[in-house]
Amino acid sequence: MPVATRYLALESDGNCDIQNITDQVRTELCATSLRNGTVTVFVPGATGGVTTVEFEEGLVKDLREMFEAIAPQGKRYHHDQKWHDGNGHSHVRASLLGPSLTVPFCASELVLGTWQQIVFIDFDVRPRSRKLVLQFVGE
Amino acid sequence: MPVATRYLALESDGNCDIQNITDQVRTELCATSLRNGTVTVFVPGATGGVTTVEFEEGLVKDLREMFEAIAPQGKRYHHDQKWHDGNGHSHVRASLLGPSLTVPFCASELVLGTWQQIVFIDFDVRPRSRKLVLQFVGE
Amino acid sequence: MPVATRYLALESDGNCDIQNITDQVRTELCATSLRNGTVTVFVPGATGGVTTVEFEEGLVKDLREMFEAIAPQGKRYHHDQKWHDGNGHSHVRASLLGPSLTVPFCASELVLGTWQQIVFIDFDVRPRSRKLVLQFVGE
Repeated sequence: MPVATRYLALESDGNCDIQNITDQVRTELCATSLRNGTVTVFVPGATGGVTTVEFEEGLVKDLREMFEAIAPQGKRYHHDQKWHDGNGHSHVRASLLGPSLTVPFCASELVLGTWQQIVFIDFDVRPRSRKLVLQFVGE
Repeated sequence: MPVATRYLALESDGNCDIQNITDQVRTELCATSLRNGTVTVFVPGATGGVTTVEFEEGLVKDLREMFEAIAPQGKRYHHDQKWHDGNGHSHVRASLLGPSLTVPFCASELVLGTWQQIVFIDFDVRPRSRKLVLQFVGE
Repeated sequence: MPVATRYLALESDGNCDIQNITDQVRTELCATSLRNGTVTVFVPGATGGVTTVEFEEGLVKDLREMFEAIAPQGKRYHHDQKWHDGNGHSHVRASLLGPSLTVPFCASELVLGTWQQIVFIDFDVRPRSRKLVLQFVGE
């Protein structure tokens, strides 16, 4: 079976909630019959993103401060002036970070570094139920 | 056929022209015989990028303002001092956003969110003819 | 063989050392038996990233200045206050750029633009030995 699709259901607080999803991705990898290939972690939605980080409290704060510096919540966004949902900053942050991350796996193990975790970041301004897509392609 | 390569020809205005290419990617997906897998949308060029966004006029402006804040056109770039093509800001913006986006598809449908579109951003300073690569891998 | 894993050993100076790894990726592609597919270039580590750029001296400096503007080395990072390794800026830059880049190949050739090279950026604050993962998936 060269392709296996799995889903990851998450409850997020929004407002730059950063969640470590590494263990869930590992669990889903083991549930497939694939040994070597890539997994694409994808956010179907325009206000969330995926990346990796050394997941510790300090860096979680530092990441939030970096996104606040790049696209401040208090700035006036054209999106908000038209749609009034107050999440213009969420959208531009998500577009910059990107909705997609592709991680190789070998012998059924993700090739992550020791201090490197996969994180989902919810930039939206309210709690949300999210369903990420994990697309495993390989052999 | 596990791999299918398609090309997307675009005419761009440059200067942070943001184009919604979702329908074209969908059309090309249907033209392959693949049902499940991933499509990598790739810009062969150093002044363009790909991401997703809720494609509406306000956010298109907001994205442009974010890139102008990150890498202002008016700044002095070492690239321009040497090569005089005036697109130093285009290059660094493109490198930051990245030339590549990988989107899963299932049952011949892209797994995008309802308000999420795939966009090509041309950061260069002049109109250009572009040919994006769509690499479908799956089953 | 639909999946081929290769490794790229690099010696880096750190401190935003930007290395052109295009030729090495091409060499490894030729060493596989794959003709069409994608290669995911992945950094197993939380202080490095991958992207593409027109690799010339001016842009290398411009990229460094952009990252310094986004996440200045002199800022106080929560990570450093707790762990004292002085690389808080390295981590947030790496998370923003991302550890992963996926490039299509056709007829055993990467589909890069003429002036587009694949680069590894080491954001860490000291020289490091790195081993990147190249995951080739295709036919």
